[in-house]
Amino acid sequence: MLPFLREHHADPGRLHAEGRVTRVALEHARAQVAAFLGARPREVVFTSSGTEAVNAAVAGAIARAGGGHVVTTAVEHSSVREAIERAASGVTVVGVDRFGRFDAAEVAAAVRPDTALVSVQLANHEVGTVQPAADVCARVRPAGTLVHVDACAAVGYLPVSFSALGADLCSVTAHTWGGPKGAGALLVRRGLRVPPLLVGGAQERARRGGMEDIPAWVGFGAAASAVDLTVEAARARALVARAVEGISAVPGIARHGDPSAEGSLPNLLCLAVEGVEAEPVLLALDQHGVAVHSGSSCSSETLEPSPVLAAMGVDAEHTLRVSVGWSSTPADVDRFVSALPSIVEGLRGLRSV
Amino acid sequence: MLPFLREHHADPGRLHAEGRVTRVALEHARAQVAAFLGARPREVVFTSSGTEAVNAAVAGAIARAGGGHVVTTAVEHSSVREAIERAASGVTVVGVDRFGRFDAAEVAAAVRPDTALVSVQLANHEVGTVQPAADVCARVRPAGTLVHVDACAAVGYLPVSFSALGADLCSVTAHTWGGPKGAGALLVRRGLRVPPLLVGGAQERARRGGMEDIPAWVGFGAAASAVDLTVEAARARALVARAVEGISAVPGIARHGDPSAEGSLPNLLCLAVEGVEAEPVLLALDQHGVAVHSGSSCSSETLEPSPVLAAMGVDAEHTLRVSVGWSSTPADVDRFVSALPSIVEGLRGLRSV
Repeated sequence: MLPFLREHHADPGRLHAEGRVTRVALEHARAQVAAFLGARPREVVFTSSGTEAVNAAVAGAIARAGGGHVVTTAVEHSSVREAIERAASGVTVVGVDRFGRFDAAEVAAAVRPDTALVSVQLANHEVGTVQPAADVCARVRPAGTLVHVDACAAVGYLPVSFSALGADLCSVTAHTWGGPKGAGALLVRRGLRVPPLLVGGAQERARRGGMEDIPAWVGFGAAASAVDLTVEAARARALVARAVEGISAVPGIARHGDPSAEGSLPNLLCLAVEGVEAEPVLLALDQHGVAVHSGSSCSSETLEPSPVLAAMGVDAEHTLRVSVGWSSTPADVDRFVSALPSIVEGLRGLRSV
Repeated sequence: MLPFLREHHADPGRLHAEGRVTRVALEHARAQVAAFLGARPREVVFTSSGTEAVNAAVAGAIARAGGGHVVTTAVEHSSVREAIERAASGVTVVGVDRFGRFDAAEVAAAVRPDTALVSVQLANHEVGTVQPAADVCARVRPAGTLVHVDACAAVGYLPVSFSALGADLCSVTAHTWGGPKGAGALLVRRGLRVPPLLVGGAQERARRGGMEDIPAWVGFGAAASAVDLTVEAARARALVARAVEGISAVPGIARHGDPSAEGSLPNLLCLAVEGVEAEPVLLALDQHGVAVHSGSSCSSETLEPSPVLAAMGVDAEHTLRVSVGWSSTPADVDRFVSALPSIVEGLRGLRSV
């Protein structure tokens, strides 16, 4: 990223030599991201974030149809949920099982003649459950209904292949798995045109107006090219297993979501902690140098209950979301494991007084 | 920006210590940008670009009113024009004089009872003409109609004071005057609520969903804090004067726009070159190491004629847009001045054969 912050500032849309330097870098990054996601380079539309990609996908698909009904699920990220609420003329929300997993047949059965879009996630951002998104695409797309897959939580931890997935639109982000902030992408199936969310320029083949963020997108490409998903997933899963093992003796702690390796993201651990609120646990862990959170990634901390956990029938107030990333170490996990029991015990003691 | 690319990656919305580091940096940047733009920190909503800010302003103001009529001018940036075309139920486009300047009274007279928004620029992005935007605000706002001022071309070259301007909404960008790509802002007058363009998170006080781009926005704040507009404007104006003086002997070259110092941006020079197309001139200048362009900043190079120049009654095919920036030197200008005459002469010679 540094040469593009320090030296090469030119607009890649220009004819001159400086513009060609940034244009070449941009298209190199696009090819790297495409290879990482099993897409064609021309199918990659860079965005400023996963949230922008989701908003562009949902608003664009609905605008393309001139409005209409949308089928989605009860465990989508707030960007999907709110973008649908704003633009759709009607919504069918499909529920989930106790692992937070929707049923592809149930999603497909909810499609109506006026359905403009089906929007489902590839994996859940709070409990890590891997979803049957490819199955939804296989059931829904042959009849001509557009499918958007939100892969923001999955990317960087699960292999994402846009061609194998069979979706029309797919949203990804970069910052959650070692790429930079300011970078995301909307994958748009070859031949499909959806109206852009940001207008005012022919950038990204007239699919997203606005100056290209060359440093961030070059960083996204470099991260996509550098990450070894097999290594990263194994490393993340080992860290999560170390945490699960380490706290197994603490009474009244259970894991939410699918505990199987095939059915879950390797990097997330959603814990139900009986008898204590999440917030004081977070603050106490912070004093031990451990950064965990409640709520989803990418949303500001709020005290509203999580709709994901509510859909699973789980009490969100007593839930901690522990995530490991590219910079996490076994020592980080051990600090968490050694701090948690006394924090929980102390808070439970206060309650029982 | 580097500490936030290298070390401090945390989500500023989190309660933990790492989140507080990025939160403090974000709010420091917001205060810097607010001070630079004569706004309150809470009035600053960071965006990924000027284009996003413009789209958010126009779509938000129209959505707030539940649709409606918009008054704008014939010389707005394509982001303003296209965002209005998409969302407004009707548009009145006010024309300009031969300098590309609109008349504030004419804009005010076009406001109707169903007008949801008046959107005008602070300075023109192609010919550099400074516009009577504050006069528009003074005439229109007392009756309750929202005014958006697009200050993307002006910021960094003209002083922008949101409070003195008296606008409801004001869009700015960072990359055109030495700030980084990936950064812009929408200023929103205290007390005004417009629906966000990007939904799915309570970031930016629930006015823009999506992970905050801390490195880019910290860079925006640092640039805002570092730039001395008096020095920069004088430096830019001297470079432009050097160019004008240097090519004054070339026959058949005239300057578009207001030539007065009060009436024009200091950094832009829009030249009509009689008898030659712009594109071969650009390519030949590029071979001399001089990067100039046709069309507006922030749009990809297209061969479509400029609506700005058309509104002024000018032939865009024969127009070069020369801009100087923070990195431009007298030597750059001299290279342009020494290369241009023979290029123009050569191309005219080809034509007359």
